[in-house]
Parts: sequence; C-alpha cells; structure tokens
Amino acid sequence: MSTTTPLLAQLTETAIRARRAARILTVSSTEQKNAAITAIAEKLRKNTPRLLEANEQDIAAAKARGLSTAMIDRLRLTPERMEAMAGGAMQVARLPDPVGVVLERWTRPNGLEIIKKSVPIGVIGIIYESRPNVTCDAAVLCLKAGNATILRGGSEAFHSNTAIADTLEEALAEAGLPGAVSFVPTTDREAIPLLCSLDKYIDVMIPRGGHGLISTVVEHARMPVIKHYNGICHVFVERNANLKMAEEIIVNAKCQRPGVCNAMETLLVDAPVAAAFVPQIAARLKKEGVEIRTDAETRKAYPELASPNNADWDMEYLDLIMNLRVVEGVDAAIEHIEQHGSHHSDSIITEDKAVAEKFLNAVDSAAVYWNASTRFTDGSEFGFGAEIGIGTGKLHARGPMGLRELTTYKYQIVGTGQVRK
Amino acid sequence: MSTTTPLLAQLTETAIRARRAARILTVSSTEQKNAAITAIAEKLRKNTPRLLEANEQDIAAAKARGLSTAMIDRLRLTPERMEAMAGGAMQVARLPDPVGVVLERWTRPNGLEIIKKSVPIGVIGIIYESRPNVTCDAAVLCLKAGNATILRGGSEAFHSNTAIADTLEEALAEAGLPGAVSFVPTTDREAIPLLCSLDKYIDVMIPRGGHGLISTVVEHARMPVIKHYNGICHVFVERNANLKMAEEIIVNAKCQRPGVCNAMETLLVDAPVAAAFVPQIAARLKKEGVEIRTDAETRKAYPELASPNNADWDMEYLDLIMNLRVVEGVDAAIEHIEQHGSHHSDSIITEDKAVAEKFLNAVDSAAVYWNASTRFTDGSEFGFGAEIGIGTGKLHARGPMGLRELTTYKYQIVGTGQVRK
Repeated sequence: MSTTTPLLAQLTETAIRARRAARILTVSSTEQKNAAITAIAEKLRKNTPRLLEANEQDIAAAKARGLSTAMIDRLRLTPERMEAMAGGAMQVARLPDPVGVVLERWTRPNGLEIIKKSVPIGVIGIIYESRPNVTCDAAVLCLKAGNATILRGGSEAFHSNTAIADTLEEALAEAGLPGAVSFVPTTDREAIPLLCSLDKYIDVMIPRGGHGLISTVVEHARMPVIKHYNGICHVFVERNANLKMAEEIIVNAKCQRPGVCNAMETLLVDAPVAAAFVPQIAARLKKEGVEIRTDAETRKAYPELASPNNADWDMEYLDLIMNLRVVEGVDAAIEHIEQHGSHHSDSIITEDKAVAEKFLNAVDSAAVYWNASTRFTDGSEFGFGAEIGIGTGKLHARGPMGLRELTTYKYQIVGTGQVRK
Repeated sequence: MSTTTPLLAQLTETAIRARRAARILTVSSTEQKNAAITAIAEKLRKNTPRLLEANEQDIAAAKARGLSTAMIDRLRLTPERMEAMAGGAMQVARLPDPVGVVLERWTRPNGLEIIKKSVPIGVIGIIYESRPNVTCDAAVLCLKAGNATILRGGSEAFHSNTAIADTLEEALAEAGLPGAVSFVPTTDREAIPLLCSLDKYIDVMIPRGGHGLISTVVEHARMPVIKHYNGICHVFVERNANLKMAEEIIVNAKCQRPGVCNAMETLLVDAPVAAAFVPQIAARLKKEGVEIRTDAETRKAYPELASPNNADWDMEYLDLIMNLRVVEGVDAAIEHIEQHGSHHSDSIITEDKAVAEKFLNAVDSAAVYWNASTRFTDGSEFGFGAEIGIGTGKLHARGPMGLRELTTYKYQIVGTGQVRK
C-alpha cells in the first residue's frame, strides 16, 4: 500500500489531466487537430538527434541484457525511422476527420429529429510492448479521432518512449492541447492494474502484446478493453479447391511475413484431396523453409511431413513453422477452427459457392476469406488509411481498427417543446 | 474453494451448452428463430396457471420479509401480465431480423470484395434485479438477434424466474434450440463473479440494476460489459429559453414517471432568468408534489424553495424529489453536468441555436436534447421497436439498446486467389 499510493496518486493526476484535454479535443475543429499533428511531426524532425541519443541508451541496455539481434533491431531508431514516424503523422493529418459524421438521422411522428453522430471516445489507455514508434503512431491516430491518450510502453524501450512522449507533449502544449498525450513515466509493473482501476477517467483500454499483458489488463480493467491479441489463423483446402490457387495462398499466408498475427498457423486439408495435395504443398513449403508439424497418424500416412514435432493446434508460432491436419469435410474444418482458432482470420479455398457460404457464415472470426490469403486483415489493405491494430474481441472494433473505430456515437435530439405522453 | 468448485463446474457446463446453442443460432434462419419465439409465447400461455403458482411463492416470501407494497406489486404476475409477456414475445417475432444485414460492401483495387455484415454477438449474460418479466423479454430479444443467453435474476423473484425459464427451455428444446436460454438456478451470490470469469464462453455481460450489482460485474468481468446504470439527467433552462416551454418540459421530465432512469434529477437555471423562472417553476412543481432541494445560498435568495434538505448533485432520486441550481451561462451548466451527470440524457431549453449547438456538442451523454424532455431516451420512443435497456457506457451500445445493438459484425472477404504483395 505504501508503495502503490504515490503511484496511484500520480496516475490519477495524469488521468484527470487527460480527461480535461479530452473535453477540449471533443469540441476541437479538424483544423486544430491537424495543426497539432503537424506540430508533432515538425518537433519530431527537430528533436531527432536528441531522440536518437535516448534510443542509444535503450540499445546499450538491450545489448547488455543479451537481447536477440531481431529484438534489438525492433528497438532501434534511425534517422530514416524518425522520418517515417513524422511522415506517418502527416499522413494521418491528411485523412478525413472521423468525428462529427452524421451516421443516421430520422424524424419521429411527434416531430423530434434524432441525429446519430460520431464523437470521440474520450480518454484511451494504450498498453503495449512493441517498438517505440507505437508511442507516436498510436497517439497521433487517437488525437485525430479527438481522443486523449495515456500510453504505457515496454520497459526495454523506456528511454526512447519517454523522449518521444516529451516531444509530443512539447508540441501539444504549444498547440494548446496540454495533456492530450501522456506517457506513464515508470516501468513499475504495478502501474498497469492501477491504470485499469481508473474507469472514472479512462474510457477504454487497448492492450497490444502477448498473453501476459492482455491477461493482466482483461483481469483488472473496470472499463471496456479492446484486445489486440493473437492470431491463430487457418486455411482450409476444401475438396473442390483449385489446388494451384490453394498452394499460392498457403505460401503467401505462411511465408510472406510469418511474424504477424494474420499469418496462417494451421492448414486444414479436406480428406478427399489430401493424397493429391499434401505431397504437393509439403514439397513447396519445404523449399520455402517451413517446418510442418502434424500428428503421428498423419505423419505415417504422409512421409513427406518430415518434422518429428507434434502439432500444437493452439499455438501461434509467428515463425516458419505450421500445423497440418487432414479433416473430413467443411463441418470438421469449422469445428476445428471453433475449438482452436482465435476468431481472427480464416480462409476457405474452394470452387463450391454453397460450401464457401457455409464456411463464411459459420466461422466466427473477425475476417473470413473465400479464395484469398489471411494476410489481408490489415487496415491499409482494407482501405482504412491507417490502423491502430486488429481487434480480436467481439464488440465495438472487430478486425482492423482504423480512425472510425476510435470514435463512438451520441444521439442529438432536436425538438420544439415535445414532452412524453 | 470447496463451495465454489461445484458451482463453477455447474456454471461452466451451462456456459458450454449456451455456446453450443449460439453456434446453431448463428446459422439459424429468421423463420427458425421466429418459430422458436412463437413456441415460447404459446408455452407461456399454456403454462400460465403453473407460473402464477410459482409467483405466489415469491409473493408470500416477499410479504413475510416485509417488502414494500410497490416492490410486491413489481414482483407480481397476473393473467394480464402473463398475456403481456406472451404478446411482447410475438411483437419481437414480427420485428425485422437484425442479423445478416450488409452494413457496407466495397471492392479493393486488387479485386477483393469486402462485405461488412451484422452477426450475432454469441452468448450474452444478463444479470438483473428487476421484475420477473425481464427473464422472458430479455431472452426473446437476444434470441431474435441470434444470441444465446444466460440469465441470472434477483433472489426475490427466484421461483417466478425459474418457472418462466423452465417454460422457455421447454419451448426451445421442442424448437430444436436446447440451451439457447439458460437460467442460473441458484441464489448464491458467488455465481455472479464466477459467471464473470467465464470469458471463454460468454461474450458480453449486461448488468441491469443498482450500484452494487453493476460494480460487482464491472469489477469481475473479463468480458466486455454493457452497463445499464443510473440516469442523473439534467435540464438546463438557458437565458434565451421560452420559459413556458421550459416549464412543461421540466414537469414532464420530473413527474411523468419519476422512478425511471431518463427522468430529470437536477434542474439548472441560467442566472439572468432565475428571478423570473425560479418562483414560476417552484409553484408549478409544488402543485405536482415535488420536493425541490438546493443549497443554503439559493434557498435564501428564493424562499419559494421551501425544502430544508440540501441538494445532492450526485444522487439519482427516482422519486418526486429533485435538485435546483442557479448557474451562470452555458459553460457553467456543461461543467456541472460533466462533474455530476451520468452521461445518460441531458437537455437544454433555449431559442438560441448557437448556444444549443455548443451544449449538444460539449455534453458527453448518450442522448443530448434541445427543447425536449429527457424522457424520450427509450427504444420505442426512438422507433427501435423494442429495447433491452439503456446503455450508459461509451462503447458498442450507447443509449437505447434495441435488436441491432444486440448484434456485432464480421467481415466476409471474397477473392479469386489474391495474395498479399
């Protein structure tokens, strides 16, 4: 208690400040918001030397801790990456304002006019583990949608995140929006459950990261949580598939970028085409350097599947490793996906329209594909301009979460003195 | 632990059964769902004598516990109320199916066709305290939107709720949808946090009730919560108001049905019209039997405000009691509402369009009115046909929650072999 109390007081103060900024942002014009984003981009460019210095501290600490080359590369800021960050902000400034859109409008028999209008959500808490550019990218997207943000990044990027956040703060104060972006200036893990208790000030939490992070937020949050969790994505090659098309889609879904959430983890092959297709796809994937895991029985039937490792149907490999399972028909495929999928992205390859429609309707995922790669579940591939992530929950923002998904709505009702009978 | 384990096992089994029913409901046709609802209505009519008997047990227990006449009346089932329940179900059967609606549809430059379609949410947990008719009304609405429900009602209506739930179960089993509606057959309070932990099977919780209930659900739920919480609604009489119109709206907002969430709790009067308006409205409200509470200073200035009780700006009276406060201008009114409101329904009375628009944009409530009574925040008044309640959270369902708000969406993407570059 003695250690959490000052931290709680500090976080509460941050949250109250964010709430105040959110009230100003709600009634800010598109021009005001774009001016603030432009100020951020300019300040990032100006402060680049200082930001690279701060980043050097994180890199040195990461090396000292023996982090992998890949992780260190993800942490690293370079002049090019700084320019990409500033350029990304300017792209968001050019996107249409998602706030104030009349979503619906109707008049009741008593003459009341009801207008359903998009409005900012308010204060958004973003808890993330990934690269330092998230600090800027997420804050700018939220800002464009009229929201204040409270950011809490991973400890390994702490110096970089703090320097970026200071830069944003500086720009926003000059633009008349102090407190619109706050960064939690501590690596104390206790900060996460404490933030999650501040539902009086924070309207929604967006956690982005691994199981531990998501689980902590889901367990403690009193406000709604929009999860960006894992993708255990499936491709099902149905008996009426064009097998050449299936091959290209599978290779794309697994290999084009294996480390992301919309990459395929499990291939389901319909039994009647397994004898023809399994050797074909195994040979192709071998060339691509993919390890295919399955069960003992299938390995026996298809010696091409050389890996001695058993499949883990519930695993998100995020690597050139995948599962293969032979199933009997579309119902068995749907059942497997219901049991082991993560409701993210799943695809059926078939030339049979009726079977495809059954799959599209029954599979309970944010994005369900027919004859296309799962890799398209992405804000820019959907045409949203930018995205803050891929929602894996059921409500509010399912699938790619763009600017529009960073708003909510209210009803404005215009009368001439109506009272209820 | 020894007492919760069997209960958790029982609730988990219920939830798994609901999940299975939800998968069938997702692909059920409108006709199948309507047939199930019709079967429910028929069974309710047929079982009326048995249901009234069960209700007698609750009434007898309520009398023995000395509950108020008003509470006992709320508990009571009569042949007329049973008929209203069955008739209400048939009304829902006649409403358009909210599932399968194409919300948006576009084609990407690569030829991918993206279809955003409304789909059921899945399994909905409804925790309520109110009248036994909620058991049927809520279940039928969720069913029409393709969702399975797990219901947990208040202990004082336990026998009535159980009998109604048994009737629904009977009808649904005959209609081929066993498990589509489940009732938690225990008054053990521990059931609520346990249900809240089953996010693997339950997609959303809808708590309807008082502070204690909402708070328990918000604290424990790992899944999203759509709160139906309190309404601290305001009417602000601005200096440019038509005072006669203001009077009629205030009387309606306070008196037409004081025990509901969209009734007014606090009247804000703009200082320049206070001298003219406060005596006028005080006299009128006195005739209506309303007690007006304010602070010592205002009481001194307006001796018409006779009540010696101080105002509690954060109180939902749900009775013929209200607060009155004199404020200086629209900004002060907005500030008061931000500090003390519950983001439900607030109204400004003015003839000044610019001031009205400022209020409509700045007040962060589900429904913001200009020259109309707050009492219109209601599914049927909005033209939604039926409602499950008024959402007081920010996300997914804000304000009246009708059939459409009981759905979510998914993306169906149709390709011709597209892969990501």
